[in-house]
Amino acid sequence: MTPAAGRRPGPTVRTRVTEVRDGAAVVHEDRLATEEPLELRLQAPGLPATRLGVTMRTPGNDFELAAGWVVHERVAPPDGIGGVRYCTDTDLSPAQEFNVVTVELTASPLRLPLAHLASSACGVCGSDSVEEALGDQAAVPRVQLTAKVVHRLPEGLRDAQESFSRTGGLHAAGLFEPDGARVLVREDVGRHNAVDKVVGACVLSGRPVPPVLVLSGRIGFELVQKAVVSGIGAIVAVGAPSSLAVALAERAGMLLVGFTRAERFVTYAGSDRVGV
Amino acid sequence: MTPAAGRRPGPTVRTRVTEVRDGAAVVHEDRLATEEPLELRLQAPGLPATRLGVTMRTPGNDFELAAGWVVHERVAPPDGIGGVRYCTDTDLSPAQEFNVVTVELTASPLRLPLAHLASSACGVCGSDSVEEALGDQAAVPRVQLTAKVVHRLPEGLRDAQESFSRTGGLHAAGLFEPDGARVLVREDVGRHNAVDKVVGACVLSGRPVPPVLVLSGRIGFELVQKAVVSGIGAIVAVGAPSSLAVALAERAGMLLVGFTRAERFVTYAGSDRVGV
Repeated sequence: MTPAAGRRPGPTVRTRVTEVRDGAAVVHEDRLATEEPLELRLQAPGLPATRLGVTMRTPGNDFELAAGWVVHERVAPPDGIGGVRYCTDTDLSPAQEFNVVTVELTASPLRLPLAHLASSACGVCGSDSVEEALGDQAAVPRVQLTAKVVHRLPEGLRDAQESFSRTGGLHAAGLFEPDGARVLVREDVGRHNAVDKVVGACVLSGRPVPPVLVLSGRIGFELVQKAVVSGIGAIVAVGAPSSLAVALAERAGMLLVGFTRAERFVTYAGSDRVGV
Repeated sequence: MTPAAGRRPGPTVRTRVTEVRDGAAVVHEDRLATEEPLELRLQAPGLPATRLGVTMRTPGNDFELAAGWVVHERVAPPDGIGGVRYCTDTDLSPAQEFNVVTVELTASPLRLPLAHLASSACGVCGSDSVEEALGDQAAVPRVQLTAKVVHRLPEGLRDAQESFSRTGGLHAAGLFEPDGARVLVREDVGRHNAVDKVVGACVLSGRPVPPVLVLSGRIGFELVQKAVVSGIGAIVAVGAPSSLAVALAERAGMLLVGFTRAERFVTYAGSDRVGV
């Protein structure tokens, strides 16, 4: 599964910076969140090798990112992924080979995102987007949380963030149980990538996706969309949700909490699921 | 240019939330940043009407967003945009017509982003991305700032943010002169959209793009890429840059500053352009 050669990029890189503080300039070493392009390819029975696209991401957990993305885009169900591997094309340079990942499906893809884009109906609106995101699903599983657990979830996320404290430049996503127990956390420069990674980790290890998703930042439509596909019942975030994120959460019966702090939080959807 | 009917969505919407603070739950009205899909279409001499794609954005300044996106994706130069209009297809519902924008070019497009994606070379790496982002440009214009101006830029951005204080959910981008004078500010749920909007505003009014870009959040590769295309000489941000953002700024000769506060900032590229 792993190529024999090549320098594998890490989640952070060192750099020299000039820091100005209280009028004085000091040159010192600092760390940056690594951002590198990742090309996703698909291999499936009866389908020629297909390039799905390129996303900018933080290297690390690339197979999880690829598996989560394929599931969230409804290209294949979780049990339809046969394997994930780095590219072994002989024409790739060492710098390239860890930036190309192929997902092997055990059956034909349910859909191809690019083809879908081109054939989409004329005209778009928010309510269409909400209905499309729901797909055939009636609702996500109902999740009940106590206020005490909600207040503590962001701290549980931060405690597991390895790279953030070094760079300040990474988003984190974590999956938790309803009693507040942390299951796993992933980080990325892209918040949608972090969500793909945590779910992809469950997909690749064959375990069910825990029902509570905790986010270090804001909640956009795309993140709720991914949670709906994965059957996640609650999102608890440090930041604010968008209008369409709230509309989809309401429609899917999902608990959606924002501005979560030790002394405060705001419930935007499913407020009856939180016991104060 | 403006359709006769339809309800135009605003940058924020009202909602009812349940806020838990110090153990007590209170239901009150709150505001959310509006997020709605925007479909971009292209019309050019000798080209059938082409759908470029759909982006999630905060409604408002949609023509600026479309113009800025077309310029930043190198589809057309700033003076190649003949006009921008909402869709007037008779089959669109009122909710849809403000979510479809057509950009008219005065000549054939220089490139089409989707076609480009499909024909891109096999294999990707960060340094390829940097060279591709530079295109034919040697470097961005050199910009010199004093530390005093840098410290004050985020405050100048916040002072002009209309929606942020109401929702906490919007990113802002602003264009400033090197002496710290604010030229214009735009907001969006997507940080890349906010940058498209400020530059698009200059494109549509035919004025040169001011050389200093100020950002409310983090600095990813894509944002530096847009700044390079627009000939912006300096980015000053409140958040942290990624590794590839710094690599591109260095290569383009751009001043790149992060973690900007009243008492502190960190220079990641072009530190010789800041006088302490």
